[in-house]
Amino acid sequence: MKVLVIGASGRLGAAAASALSQHHEVIEASRSGEVQVDLSDTASIASMFERIGRVDAVIACTGAVPFKPLAGLSPDDFRAGINDKVLGQVNLVQTGTPYVNDGGSFTLTTGVLAREPIVTGVVASLANGALESFVMAAAAELPRGIRINAVSPSVLEEATDYHSYFPGFVRISSEDAGQAYVKSVDGIQTGRVIPLG
Amino acid sequence: MKVLVIGASGRLGAAAASALSQHHEVIEASRSGEVQVDLSDTASIASMFERIGRVDAVIACTGAVPFKPLAGLSPDDFRAGINDKVLGQVNLVQTGTPYVNDGGSFTLTTGVLAREPIVTGVVASLANGALESFVMAAAAELPRGIRINAVSPSVLEEATDYHSYFPGFVRISSEDAGQAYVKSVDGIQTGRVIPLG
Repeated sequence: MKVLVIGASGRLGAAAASALSQHHEVIEASRSGEVQVDLSDTASIASMFERIGRVDAVIACTGAVPFKPLAGLSPDDFRAGINDKVLGQVNLVQTGTPYVNDGGSFTLTTGVLAREPIVTGVVASLANGALESFVMAAAAELPRGIRINAVSPSVLEEATDYHSYFPGFVRISSEDAGQAYVKSVDGIQTGRVIPLG
Repeated sequence: MKVLVIGASGRLGAAAASALSQHHEVIEASRSGEVQVDLSDTASIASMFERIGRVDAVIACTGAVPFKPLAGLSPDDFRAGINDKVLGQVNLVQTGTPYVNDGGSFTLTTGVLAREPIVTGVVASLANGALESFVMAAAAELPRGIRINAVSPSVLEEATDYHSYFPGFVRISSEDAGQAYVKSVDGIQTGRVIPLG
């Protein structure tokens, strides 16, 4: 299979690319680097697909959100997180669908904050919850047997800089995170959240 | 208790107001009518609270989203649904918190599409999922013992114009819907989704 991993320069993207490259041809894309894409811009998404051609699987490990105490979150903070994390991945699905082969798949990335809170994590929770319900609903309307799932991990073992924000949360190895993307790409499920931790 | 019901002119808002008025003083607000508010405008929200004063419970039965097949949904459709349904209720919580008495509560309204798909319901699913994770996370950071929950109903019995879009879905009586808001306002739970159907 030809598998596109967007956000491959990040920790989760690297884990996904590493696991999938065992059995598949992986194309890595990110905001900078050889294959560039800006998910906030549907023209940039279309241009990337025109360059690389049709693929069998698309993986998004992207999206940044502001982390601030609830009382300090402005409407613009919510909007920024939604635009980057939610609408970026939605744009990818909407613009990318014609470039995905029959029976192919999308795998989005959400996170444990969809189902558990941490201090300053409200926008992340909202964005992850939005994407997890999007995946559930979009699965029922995607054409040509194209599937869609979300990988929803707890904090990574290697992300030691974040551990203090996730007290007592299960820490996920990069290998386990990578296998969750393999499960979505090589499995048969659709419309599902694949939780890790 | 003094209970503010926003969107009281709609079916769910009327059900909530009717149930809560059995034991509480209910103030009804909506886009038109005596007490007016536009949840997209934080100044309008603040102005409403300045007029009615502090309250013990705030209920939002508001938010419209576009219903279209997935393939026809543009970025603007997603943005419109998020602005109206998600950010409207988030603005209400953020601007309204200082006007809610200690130990008071917010009750937002989501819906069954957060957890089940219907044709053309993708934006509704995304918006409801966003709010349900928001409620879970915001509950952990609200001050002064203020609680927050979401009532998440299936289609109403009386909403016969929508029944064909919800084939086989459990239909909820207005009485049961109203009692879900009572459960949130008079109960002790916080950060919870109260599903109906």
